Amino acid sequence: MGESEFDAATRLVPLSSQAQLSSQAQPAGGFSVDISDQWSGLASVNGGFLLATCAKALHSLLPFPDPIVMSGLYLRPANPGPAQVHAEVIRSGRTTAFGQASLEQGGKEVLRATAAFSDLASVPVEFLGRVPPKLPDPADCHRLQGISGIEIGRRFEYRAPVIPGWLRGSPSGDPTSEFWIRFADGRDADTLTLPFIVDAAPPVVLELGGGSTTIELTVHVRARPAPGWLACRVITRYVSGGYHEEDVEVWDSAGTLVAQSRQLALVRR
Amino acid sequence: MGESEFDAATRLVPLSSQAQLSSQAQPAGGFSVDISDQWSGLASVNGGFLLATCAKALHSLLPFPDPIVMSGLYLRPANPGPAQVHAEVIRSGRTTAFGQASLEQGGKEVLRATAAFSDLASVPVEFLGRVPPKLPDPADCHRLQGISGIEIGRRFEYRAPVIPGWLRGSPSGDPTSEFWIRFADGRDADTLTLPFIVDAAPPVVLELGGGSTTIELTVHVRARPAPGWLACRVITRYVSGGYHEEDVEVWDSAGTLVAQSRQLALVRR
Repeated sequence: MGESEFDAATRLVPLSSQAQLSSQAQPAGGFSVDISDQWSGLASVNGGFLLATCAKALHSLLPFPDPIVMSGLYLRPANPGPAQVHAEVIRSGRTTAFGQASLEQGGKEVLRATAAFSDLASVPVEFLGRVPPKLPDPADCHRLQGISGIEIGRRFEYRAPVIPGWLRGSPSGDPTSEFWIRFADGRDADTLTLPFIVDAAPPVVLELGGGSTTIELTVHVRARPAPGWLACRVITRYVSGGYHEEDVEVWDSAGTLVAQSRQLALVRR
Repeated sequence: MGESEFDAATRLVPLSSQAQLSSQAQPAGGFSVDISDQWSGLASVNGGFLLATCAKALHSLLPFPDPIVMSGLYLRPANPGPAQVHAEVIRSGRTTAFGQASLEQGGKEVLRATAAFSDLASVPVEFLGRVPPKLPDPADCHRLQGISGIEIGRRFEYRAPVIPGWLRGSPSGDPTSEFWIRFADGRDADTLTLPFIVDAAPPVVLELGGGSTTIELTVHVRARPAPGWLACRVITRYVSGGYHEEDVEVWDSAGTLVAQSRQLALVRR
């Protein structure tokens, strides 16, 4: 099997060696990346995809392999085409390292991301206040083909026990969903792709008749995912003043919570 | 009534006028602040207090009055004593402006915060998936005096229908709580103090017998709070690998959701 769609699409090319040499106390690096038209949502390039691109840049600089928390501030819409990522180490501690990355297009900053990395090799579960979503076997679920007909929907395979109301043309009024997800090309998830996967499904605010534009997205990566399908639980609890939050939980095939995310987004009418 | 404890404690003094002139395209500013010993938790200065200090610095630079989302990365413990805040505008848009602030002590960065500001003057509620906590009148609640005997606990007044198990010496095993909170000196909350208030109560992971050290805290400010008591709902759902998340909702006296927060924290044993 060759390089996966995601890995090919987020291949970071270091900028000239000068740019790699930092005048600061901490390491820093610049990279170019060519964003294809395969990762767009309705209006622009998917926010989680951009966050995972920054995760890869930070991963190349930081001494720990796993992002445990990442926050991204979405400053402008991103479009397919060339982009640059500038990443820096903020602090490297004994068990945790912190970094920041900026993604730019045409000299304008699109995304500013901060992150803490650590090592999630062994993650004993100490307290589980909720269980994984109770979903039928993926084989017994509806396969949502090219979900909502947008590019990003073709990069993933979605299986859900029920077809979402908004997809049938009648929003349910209940902004929640539970479903299986995996990369369409079979690539297994890891801690660097989870910041993408939490933003890879259509927003549940669609069940209220609204679209969504991410302002800020924070993801906690809680464990390294086992291979196979991921079960997601999504909920929007409050819409006010034109904003809504969306919470996502991602559980792996072994029943382990591997990521939690929350985003603040503008409701598009 | 004089200046409130909070406002006096977060008085930002601009650094020399040179420092105010930015060589960058966007405005930036440096401030000094003297952190007293009145705002510490068990081990160090409260993280929400530091985040609100950064909110005030950004507020002085940005063209909109209300933080709608703030994320802070806690790099090192902060101690009482002098500190500096360096703030910069990342981007000023038509309805939203973005900024970043760093809080330093002794030349070492303690907190890196990013934020989006907007105007929350009018915030119609469009969808409410949950109702405010159902709490007895504050007068009919237990007054938790100098909660847990730490400094930060004296800056707030807490009223709860039941005394938390951990405070009675027998952790309940249920990491949730609902309670009223307000500044002890009667200062009303506003959108600049909400990033503090979401971190002002003892962590509910205490009900599992553990303490907590914040790694990252994100707060969504959803509306300007009405004067008076605030009702909080707190839950930790998962503890694994030595980390836990904590979600806080803050509702004002008019029954409006005014803030949501989530933090990732280390469990202290």
